[in-house]
Amino acid sequence: MRDALLLTPGPLTTSLTTKTAMLRDWGSWDADFNAMTARVCRRLVSLIDGEGEYTCVPLQGSGTFAVEAAIGTLVPREGKLLVLANGAYGHRMARLTAVMGRDVEVLDVGETSPVDPARVDAALRADKRITHVGVIHCETSTGILNPLSDVARVVNTHRRRLIVDAMSSFGALAISAREIDFDAVIASANKCLEGVPGMGFVLARQSSLMQAEGRAHSLSLDLHDQWCYLERTGQWRFTPPTHVVAALAQALDQFDAEGGQPARLARYQANCHALQEGLRAMGLQPFLPERWQAPIIVTVHAPAHPAWDFGDFYRRTKARGVVLYPGKLTTVETFRVGCIGAIDSSDIDAALDAMRRSLADMGIPA
Amino acid sequence: MRDALLLTPGPLTTSLTTKTAMLRDWGSWDADFNAMTARVCRRLVSLIDGEGEYTCVPLQGSGTFAVEAAIGTLVPREGKLLVLANGAYGHRMARLTAVMGRDVEVLDVGETSPVDPARVDAALRADKRITHVGVIHCETSTGILNPLSDVARVVNTHRRRLIVDAMSSFGALAISAREIDFDAVIASANKCLEGVPGMGFVLARQSSLMQAEGRAHSLSLDLHDQWCYLERTGQWRFTPPTHVVAALAQALDQFDAEGGQPARLARYQANCHALQEGLRAMGLQPFLPERWQAPIIVTVHAPAHPAWDFGDFYRRTKARGVVLYPGKLTTVETFRVGCIGAIDSSDIDAALDAMRRSLADMGIPA
Ligand SMILES: Cc1ncc(COP(=O)(O)O)c(C=O)c1O
Ligand SMILES: Cc1ncc(COP(=O)(O)O)c(C=O)c1O
Repeated sequence: MRDALLLTPGPLTTSLTTKTAMLRDWGSWDADFNAMTARVCRRLVSLIDGEGEYTCVPLQGSGTFAVEAAIGTLVPREGKLLVLANGAYGHRMARLTAVMGRDVEVLDVGETSPVDPARVDAALRADKRITHVGVIHCETSTGILNPLSDVARVVNTHRRRLIVDAMSSFGALAISAREIDFDAVIASANKCLEGVPGMGFVLARQSSLMQAEGRAHSLSLDLHDQWCYLERTGQWRFTPPTHVVAALAQALDQFDAEGGQPARLARYQANCHALQEGLRAMGLQPFLPERWQAPIIVTVHAPAHPAWDFGDFYRRTKARGVVLYPGKLTTVETFRVGCIGAIDSSDIDAALDAMRRSLADMGIPA
Repeated sequence: MRDALLLTPGPLTTSLTTKTAMLRDWGSWDADFNAMTARVCRRLVSLIDGEGEYTCVPLQGSGTFAVEAAIGTLVPREGKLLVLANGAYGHRMARLTAVMGRDVEVLDVGETSPVDPARVDAALRADKRITHVGVIHCETSTGILNPLSDVARVVNTHRRRLIVDAMSSFGALAISAREIDFDAVIASANKCLEGVPGMGFVLARQSSLMQAEGRAHSLSLDLHDQWCYLERTGQWRFTPPTHVVAALAQALDQFDAEGGQPARLARYQANCHALQEGLRAMGLQPFLPERWQAPIIVTVHAPAHPAWDFGDFYRRTKARGVVLYPGKLTTVETFRVGCIGAIDSSDIDAALDAMRRSLADMGIPA
């Protein structure tokens, strides 16, 4: 039996080699496991050209846990976070900041356009209490690419600190500490790095992390404590998801073998291009203008046809071996198709074929 | 190559079948995956005879995350937790409660004896502000079994609520809601259930959880929110560790095939017995008196010999394919040997043999 193709934005289709790395049990106290953690962390730091200045703190749990840990640890209790929101993940960042009792303000630009650096500039000018700015690199709820460098420049000019949720872009879109000034970049194992879910990580500026002792609202999510323990012992503070770490180590080797970030980006761009072309050919319209579209996930307008029903469409494409993703927009009916994972254009072609046949079965003409 | 035998208290040795369940990618939005989550949760509730009254809320992350989530969600902000501590995990429970800003008191009985129900009675009599009591079922730092039913009876008499960290005992030692009155039992996938690490779960009394809206100190660790979302959609709130869930589903099938909790306990008891006998035969003394020893992990006095060095011993036994665990006692030099995992007495014999030869190589006579 061939596994279904996951055109979802993580968990996604991983390679068999990556999954096979999970066929071994590791002791969490063991030197071999510690060496694996260290190797993964080193590789992740090098991915942002962060050697020397940045450190990688891995964290158990999903990506949201890592976002919450980064904010809870890096934003002082008397600090204030400005969240640049243009979709669900921006709003989630704001919500988790409010739940932990920190001051937070949302600069909401709606869900159909990128974050606007000029408005960030105005907001920072207007409120001196804002100490940190949070931005979503690729807002996965639509697939919009936000202008990270421009935002970083504005934040830096105002001498505030930037926290980047790069969950769905990390590894595919370049983020270099040599070019962009940030305090933290947050991502997880199971998106463009093509590992399996179960851990996130924060690439944090060491000098900022160093000042964060005792600041976190949660022991489990205390990145400073996690970091110190890791530095001192080489071990994770609490039981690590050993198999997930092993899969990520393997996935990173494959990442390097493929040619690193440029090669990964090229493959995803080819996937995204083939996908958009194919969708248009069957009469389906991508939601975003080309210039805002990150090569991560494509939001598609649902066909304006009485027979349309996402649940039905989902089940039909799944029966053909292709798993799609529902839309996450609040006002427009859409669905989403991922471009990421261990897939290439031939998989995209197969997916397009499954979609085409499913629409035909539903009586929806191209 | 044969994998090393992990005589560690989780992560531990899992079966190949359990690991093989991770060779498939699952969509987190998918009905098949949701059905798997539901099946796992149902099985876990049935393990405590909790049908109808209790619900299972799975949580991403390590076991500590689930402990913190249970306390943060179930103990009101103006509540007070009394932690019964006789080792590292009791103290960790107290620490994470303090970090989240809740009122907490520790009843510390030292690390060499079980929790004393009479002292719990006195503490509850003395302080009416205590709303909840936290206890560690098996204190894994020594292997001590705490008298759960007696503690529960005292807590119940005083009409306070009990939160049980059953991380290292769950599945091996019976805990029945028909016999013990508790608000929550917390455990994780990777101990006596013999799954892989990456998720914990809380078996919570529904009526208590229902009152907990908006109480948590953390969005990621908000058990009420996680529960409501799961009830409403069948899905985890944030990306679940899909492969870890699949491994647990498989591990639970094997648990049932083995004969459930009684059979698992019998196997671990046989492991523990063989281990203690063998240790004594080579002149090593278990730290705990027999009557306090849970069949989970055995703490052993380090040999009183100048050549003793745990690091050296560890590396020598590991070279022979056996991974041991360091001691966690603060005053006495010990090491630990787990009895749990997909292992039987023949594995214990092999481990004893590795220990015997390693001691001999180190020049430490039996
Ligand atoms: C941009 C972004 N942020 C945060 C998250 C949350 O990650 P998780 O679902 O692993 O908690 C996601 C998940 O898709 C994401 O795409
Ligand atoms: C009794 C007990 N509580 C809590 C924990 C913490 O679990 P984790 O290491 O998964 O965070 C453990 C781990 O061994 C434990 O044995």
